[in-house]
Amino acid sequence: MNISALLTSAGINIGLCALLLSLYSVLRKQPGNINVYFGRRLAQEHIKHQDSFSLERLVPSPSWIVKAWESSEEEILSIAGLDAVVFLRILVFSIRIFSVAAIICMCFVLPLNYHGQSLHRFYFKHIPSESLDVFTIANVKEGSKWLWVHCVALYIITCSACILLYFEYKSIAKMRLAHLIGSPPNPSHFTVLVRAIPKSDSESFSDSVKNFFTNYHSSSYLSHQMVFKTGKIQKLMNDAERIYKGIVLLKSNQLHPRCVPNKLTCGLCGMSDPIVIYSRKLESVERKARIGDSDSFSEPKECASAFVFFKTRYAAIVASQVQQSSNPMLWVTDLAPEPHDVYWSNLWLPYRQLWFRRIATLMAAVVFMFLFLIPVTFVQGLSQLEQLQQMFPFLKSILKKTFVSQIVTGYLPSVILQLFLYIVPPTMMLFSAIEGPISHSGRKKSACCKVLYFTIWNVFFVNVLSGSVISQLNVISSPKGIPTQLAKAVPRQATFFITYVLTSGWASLSSEVVQLFALILNSFKRVFCGGSYDSDSTPSFPYHTEVPKVLLFGLLGFTCSILAPLILPFLLVYFFLGYVVYRNQILNVYCSKYETGGQFWPIVHNTTVFSLILTQIIALGVFGIKHSPVASGFTIPLLLFTLLFNEYCRQRFSPIFHSYSAEVLIKMDREDEGSGRLDGILEQLQAAYCQPEMMVHDILDCEDGNSGGGESIRCSQELHKAFVHPALGRTSFSRLQQVLLWLSLLVTFQERNASK
Amino acid sequence: MNISALLTSAGINIGLCALLLSLYSVLRKQPGNINVYFGRRLAQEHIKHQDSFSLERLVPSPSWIVKAWESSEEEILSIAGLDAVVFLRILVFSIRIFSVAAIICMCFVLPLNYHGQSLHRFYFKHIPSESLDVFTIANVKEGSKWLWVHCVALYIITCSACILLYFEYKSIAKMRLAHLIGSPPNPSHFTVLVRAIPKSDSESFSDSVKNFFTNYHSSSYLSHQMVFKTGKIQKLMNDAERIYKGIVLLKSNQLHPRCVPNKLTCGLCGMSDPIVIYSRKLESVERKARIGDSDSFSEPKECASAFVFFKTRYAAIVASQVQQSSNPMLWVTDLAPEPHDVYWSNLWLPYRQLWFRRIATLMAAVVFMFLFLIPVTFVQGLSQLEQLQQMFPFLKSILKKTFVSQIVTGYLPSVILQLFLYIVPPTMMLFSAIEGPISHSGRKKSACCKVLYFTIWNVFFVNVLSGSVISQLNVISSPKGIPTQLAKAVPRQATFFITYVLTSGWASLSSEVVQLFALILNSFKRVFCGGSYDSDSTPSFPYHTEVPKVLLFGLLGFTCSILAPLILPFLLVYFFLGYVVYRNQILNVYCSKYETGGQFWPIVHNTTVFSLILTQIIALGVFGIKHSPVASGFTIPLLLFTLLFNEYCRQRFSPIFHSYSAEVLIKMDREDEGSGRLDGILEQLQAAYCQPEMMVHDILDCEDGNSGGGESIRCSQELHKAFVHPALGRTSFSRLQQVLLWLSLLVTFQERNASK
Repeated sequence: MNISALLTSAGINIGLCALLLSLYSVLRKQPGNINVYFGRRLAQEHIKHQDSFSLERLVPSPSWIVKAWESSEEEILSIAGLDAVVFLRILVFSIRIFSVAAIICMCFVLPLNYHGQSLHRFYFKHIPSESLDVFTIANVKEGSKWLWVHCVALYIITCSACILLYFEYKSIAKMRLAHLIGSPPNPSHFTVLVRAIPKSDSESFSDSVKNFFTNYHSSSYLSHQMVFKTGKIQKLMNDAERIYKGIVLLKSNQLHPRCVPNKLTCGLCGMSDPIVIYSRKLESVERKARIGDSDSFSEPKECASAFVFFKTRYAAIVASQVQQSSNPMLWVTDLAPEPHDVYWSNLWLPYRQLWFRRIATLMAAVVFMFLFLIPVTFVQGLSQLEQLQQMFPFLKSILKKTFVSQIVTGYLPSVILQLFLYIVPPTMMLFSAIEGPISHSGRKKSACCKVLYFTIWNVFFVNVLSGSVISQLNVISSPKGIPTQLAKAVPRQATFFITYVLTSGWASLSSEVVQLFALILNSFKRVFCGGSYDSDSTPSFPYHTEVPKVLLFGLLGFTCSILAPLILPFLLVYFFLGYVVYRNQILNVYCSKYETGGQFWPIVHNTTVFSLILTQIIALGVFGIKHSPVASGFTIPLLLFTLLFNEYCRQRFSPIFHSYSAEVLIKMDREDEGSGRLDGILEQLQAAYCQPEMMVHDILDCEDGNSGGGESIRCSQELHKAFVHPALGRTSFSRLQQVLLWLSLLVTFQERNASK
Repeated sequence: MNISALLTSAGINIGLCALLLSLYSVLRKQPGNINVYFGRRLAQEHIKHQDSFSLERLVPSPSWIVKAWESSEEEILSIAGLDAVVFLRILVFSIRIFSVAAIICMCFVLPLNYHGQSLHRFYFKHIPSESLDVFTIANVKEGSKWLWVHCVALYIITCSACILLYFEYKSIAKMRLAHLIGSPPNPSHFTVLVRAIPKSDSESFSDSVKNFFTNYHSSSYLSHQMVFKTGKIQKLMNDAERIYKGIVLLKSNQLHPRCVPNKLTCGLCGMSDPIVIYSRKLESVERKARIGDSDSFSEPKECASAFVFFKTRYAAIVASQVQQSSNPMLWVTDLAPEPHDVYWSNLWLPYRQLWFRRIATLMAAVVFMFLFLIPVTFVQGLSQLEQLQQMFPFLKSILKKTFVSQIVTGYLPSVILQLFLYIVPPTMMLFSAIEGPISHSGRKKSACCKVLYFTIWNVFFVNVLSGSVISQLNVISSPKGIPTQLAKAVPRQATFFITYVLTSGWASLSSEVVQLFALILNSFKRVFCGGSYDSDSTPSFPYHTEVPKVLLFGLLGFTCSILAPLILPFLLVYFFLGYVVYRNQILNVYCSKYETGGQFWPIVHNTTVFSLILTQIIALGVFGIKHSPVASGFTIPLLLFTLLFNEYCRQRFSPIFHSYSAEVLIKMDREDEGSGRLDGILEQLQAAYCQPEMMVHDILDCEDGNSGGGESIRCSQELHKAFVHPALGRTSFSRLQQVLLWLSLLVTFQERNASK
């Protein structure tokens, strides 16, 4: 690939980006797209629809960029939580370090590479037709005395990165503490999730929990709430809930007559009135409920898990960290996740299964990673036209055309790879769900790690190691040769990585901002099914796809920096654009439903250090190939220094991200006690964790006169009040009938609203 | 090497063993050797010297074997603690599993190997001249249908090992709990060692500790005791203490006039009266004290470490496990070691250094491991005579003699290796001390791991991998080929391993029981320097050398079991002999000064699982070489099963060995409180940790009227009472003078005793 091919690729992408960004600036002004582009604001700030039509709506403008740029970090912290800030800090860190790297490498390393073969040659050939390899270290002749410049550049980049990393880690650790202290009282700090409660013949799980904690934590134990396994009934309830939401939506549409969507005849279902659609759906649910085994509607079963509430934060953290029973597989305690972060269905899982699930999903993820080699091998083959032509002779005539060949080598490979990569995050999220995490945020963090390893392996290593020779995939089996192998392959694959930045990086940012999929779905909904805005459908920020993406580009930047510095300007553009785009998306689109409290940063830190080490190993290999023992010799201390730096940071900062300290928690407890807020907090605490499926049971129980003891879920009272149904008061229906009754509640509610 | 060479080697070793064991049974009856062979009994049970001479004293007898065999596990537990029991359980486990393996392999696998080339050949050649290779799997022809027997044997061995391991782990975990509950109140359970106390300009470390713990642990905090850095003065004190001990010894000898050693003229120092020797020594100490900088005798400096005492065990474990400060490098808490287990000089180390020390010693240990390759390469060369003859042509004539060649191939290599291996444990102990552990037991455990890795690497891997071809040491760089490489090399090196069991195993056991080095030292002392028994010099059991040794033989047994089953009978003899010898040594010789509470078992468990996995990997390689896809296919699930088993055990048992559970500790606290013992325990607690070097300072402080506040070390009062010196009461001497005064105390004491 030569410069002109690169420019073709860059041109296509710049055009595409400009087009999509302008399109976005127009689309976001259309009131119909407000659900797509202002999801968070609709859900959290309840902004109004603007309907006044003006010409301005059709003119692209960069105002959104200005708005995104101007918002302060405090604003983002208050709007989207710590995780969003941490994510943006990755971009800030990347911009800083790659600015340094770009200045150093473009000024000193690039000219050296270009004039590598003969430093006295001061004429320039026709640059556009030069191969990109001329700009890589591959062009520097063996035994060159100028390799110390590369070595010094490596030193500067590594040291700057370490300094920046240290201060980022420090400031994020501080931010995490400030966030903990500054945020309103969080029920999760007072709550411990107990799993693997031992089974006893003489008493129920609930009594066991009560006895255990009153016995061993009498001074701090407040109360507890069991987790119930609801089985099949849950699915029906979920269906019913979805129908209820649809009805509420209809109602809200009736209140805003202007916004009622066109009741066009739907070509697929053949009816116009949404009421009719919901009635049909309700019937189907009812039918399923009748078919279902009546056993599945029996009392919900207690699980061996419970939320235990404590009187102070400190007591909760003590209970969560000290081993409770002399059998470590019983009475397992963890600090509870936040109420809306709880992954309820995983709490039913027997604790004994979890270790096995963790291993099984790990194995599955590894197998998946290696199966993915097949498309990747094909993709990297595309960048080596000669081999491709040998394999598929019929392509010869097509590939002879310059433009086609430029497209094929410069653009197609990364587009194909990109398409394949789209299936990865959902798969990893599935694996992470099977693993059995107790919280949604934990699941996302786990998926983030999996996607990260996957991406680094499949995009970087497989491309680099097999890129040199097709189908020679088992080069990895000889670890000693890896530095040399990498040193040979990385400069050669630099072209591919540059186009990868252009396609996967730039293009994905613009498609992120346009939200193509959501846009299409929204249009479809509006036109055919009369759907309107549903605050629950606002997506949460996909950290598990975006963090690995940004980190991968960081890895590419570091590894290519001194070998093929031409990638750096493209990367810098990516990070700048990313900074604006993600800020905009965080401010407008994504809702932060749950958060990890900055726990993504240790992942970022470790990955960056890994990238640095990899860069140094590759540099070692390169200096070896180029017969420069001095440069090699100076790289080894740098490697050791980086490892020591990482170990120091692990000791100094890592524990802060795994737990809270006694000092801070006790101070917070005392403040609450001093100000008299504590009683209020403890009162709210016991209603904080309400299992969604249990709300219905609770209503039914109340009607039957069985109040659920200490675990009555008060949040359901709200729902209860809303649906007072005459039939519920007097009867002794079977549970099956009760469920159906509850479903009919919804219809009653809807009818009542319609008659108003 | 053929059978007759093996028999030569076995003969030599059996003879040597028999000789040494008979020698031992005679030597132990001599009253002069009582220090060597009954050290523990002298120190702990204060047994009397028996002086009646009888002919019986000169006749070898097996009575000690019977005695060692008959003692029960409870007896050993009460005498030598849990660690000794755990160590003996390793031997019991080994005997059990290798009995199973020996039965299976000798009955089914060995005949199959011998008739491997043609199963219809039922005649036996002249067995003594057969090469040992005939008994290994190398003799089974490729594609043999009988390899399933090996596979089934592997299954049986693995499954038996896993079942035995599970029950051992379970019973040892139970034992650890029972030991915790059953043992008398231990001050270490109430105490937390705090390190990295932050420096403050306004208050001393001691005040910082007091403020911190009264602030955050007010309900459970009892008191604290600072650790002092004493510097140069400590060395002088140690010298003085040694002299004091000598004087006490002299005194005790005067009380037992029969035992006074011959006051022969010492050829080295030229004087006979020990009093004169000690006076000289004292003078030298005094001289050093005068020369020393007077600054070094100033007030001992407070370190950033302290022992903090709590009112309950539960409070102590909570304080030790919860992160105290929001900076994880400050206020670092750990459960304190037992008082006599504290490694005082390491408590002075700044906590910030420790992570670096840990890495540095790790690196040093790895470098040491690889430097050791040089002698090992030489040793394994000896077992391949042809190559040796090529390298050193002048040896040809010597090596032609059959006997010499048999000695050289069968015996010499492991003797040389053995001699080199003697320097390893002290080196590793040194590394472990530099690492900065807070307890002697922790240091020994760490050294045990290092010696273990070292031994397995240098005895097993290096011999196997480079045994096939001299100087081909970098075979390890290709991980994919390792199973095949191992599969080729292990059967070939089986001969070496058998002789290794004979020399290193059997011979080391008999030299262990005879205690050759201690015996010589004791004789020397008795004859020349008038030394007598000193209870402090009784050695503690060298777990760091013996655990790796036993585990290495386990590894050899597992890996060779189905490949070269001939090793198993020799191993079984080793384990049986070891069981008797170690029991005898634990009962009679070694004193248990400190213990880890069974923490060696997780190491044993992990190593055994590693051995099993290694065996399976080698078997995979062998089945691959022999073209038996069915056997290979069946080995893979076994491998996965073993890994899963290990992970389960890690989840189920491992936490028990790292911490105590709230349940158990709270129960113990309540029992003590109920029985009214608690106050007594807490009173003793504050005097439990006395820093040896501080005792002197404490006396001086008392005399000066500066009582050391809350940290006055009461244990010194004992010493104080013993040395009331007229000069101390009235003066305001300089500290230097005071130190000298204390030294003179000793002389006074001695004089007073002499005048009685």
